[in-house]
Amino acid sequence: MTNKRLGIVFVVCAPSGTGKSTLIKRLCAEFPEIAFSVSHTTRAPRPGERPGVDYQFVTTEDFLRLRDEGFFAEWAEVHGNYYGTPLGPVLGMLEKGRDVLFDIDVKGAAQLRESFRQGCHVFLLPPSREELLRRLSGRGADTAEVIARRMENAAGEMRQAELFDHLIVNDALEQAYDALRCVYAAERLRPRYHPELVAGILAGW
Amino acid sequence: MTNKRLGIVFVVCAPSGTGKSTLIKRLCAEFPEIAFSVSHTTRAPRPGERPGVDYQFVTTEDFLRLRDEGFFAEWAEVHGNYYGTPLGPVLGMLEKGRDVLFDIDVKGAAQLRESFRQGCHVFLLPPSREELLRRLSGRGADTAEVIARRMENAAGEMRQAELFDHLIVNDALEQAYDALRCVYAAERLRPRYHPELVAGILAGW
Repeated sequence: MTNKRLGIVFVVCAPSGTGKSTLIKRLCAEFPEIAFSVSHTTRAPRPGERPGVDYQFVTTEDFLRLRDEGFFAEWAEVHGNYYGTPLGPVLGMLEKGRDVLFDIDVKGAAQLRESFRQGCHVFLLPPSREELLRRLSGRGADTAEVIARRMENAAGEMRQAELFDHLIVNDALEQAYDALRCVYAAERLRPRYHPELVAGILAGW
Repeated sequence: MTNKRLGIVFVVCAPSGTGKSTLIKRLCAEFPEIAFSVSHTTRAPRPGERPGVDYQFVTTEDFLRLRDEGFFAEWAEVHGNYYGTPLGPVLGMLEKGRDVLFDIDVKGAAQLRESFRQGCHVFLLPPSREELLRRLSGRGADTAEVIARRMENAAGEMRQAELFDHLIVNDALEQAYDALRCVYAAERLRPRYHPELVAGILAGW
């Protein structure tokens, strides 16, 4: 164990409509030391989304070129759009000891699990199929066809839930948030993220 | 994975004087579903300690006989006294799906790590050597000789800290308690403790 603290690879996955964005925003507000990995995407911005903050919005042509150049730590095609995590900035932050939050899909999470042996992978679940449909419909952002596709994808993603380190059902927002902050807080307490403390103890406290 | 939930083996270790008892009492008050594994000990009761609740107080002769009969899941000699965890009641609780908290020393924790492959082991640390000495002296319960022995044992125990899953420095009580409850809450969110949820998802949510 060296004296250098590497950052935590903190992955949060959830089917669309589970409330992931709300929970992640709150976590980053309580723990401003968390860096957020801004993904590239080819999908159109939603109202309120800021380029370079929520996503880097790029054309499909640019995305595929970057992908072929090995620019992404993970990438996936979801609901007909491409998403990818740039490798360089992430490595830079982790090496500086900054924890990095990845808001990605289950295929991306599987790629990160291979790239980074250590990490904490959280899966958020909707309380039920009916509730997810209600939330997706109520959002008013998508057509019936898109909603149907999201429901189908949700079922597929959830079959991967068992591979994650922690499962959080987002039934009540306050409880789900407490669970998410606990998972992050507990992960930070692992000895590997406190090399100086451990070295001090081993040197004869 | 079966549909049956096994309880969590939740181990909390700390050198004497770290504030372990206070933190554990608070955790068990917030989460009354946690069962507390009552250890057997040959040491004399401290003021306020209740037999059968805090410890089973037994003679050295009885302790050694029980030990030789294989009664204990783990046992250790600490500060000249024997301590041991009865195996039967613990297994019964875990099989009923109850989480069990073990308040034991580092040697006991090492034995439990071998007996139960899955578990969550937490180590509490005093903020500094000086502060630990101040706390042990201020307690007024021990002679100078006992305090010196506790300080020596603390140094030895802390060299095992790296083997634990989570390290919590008890500098400020509120923060240390938040950390402990987060570790327990996060552990409960592992898929293995939610076999019904996972089975439901896999059966085609």
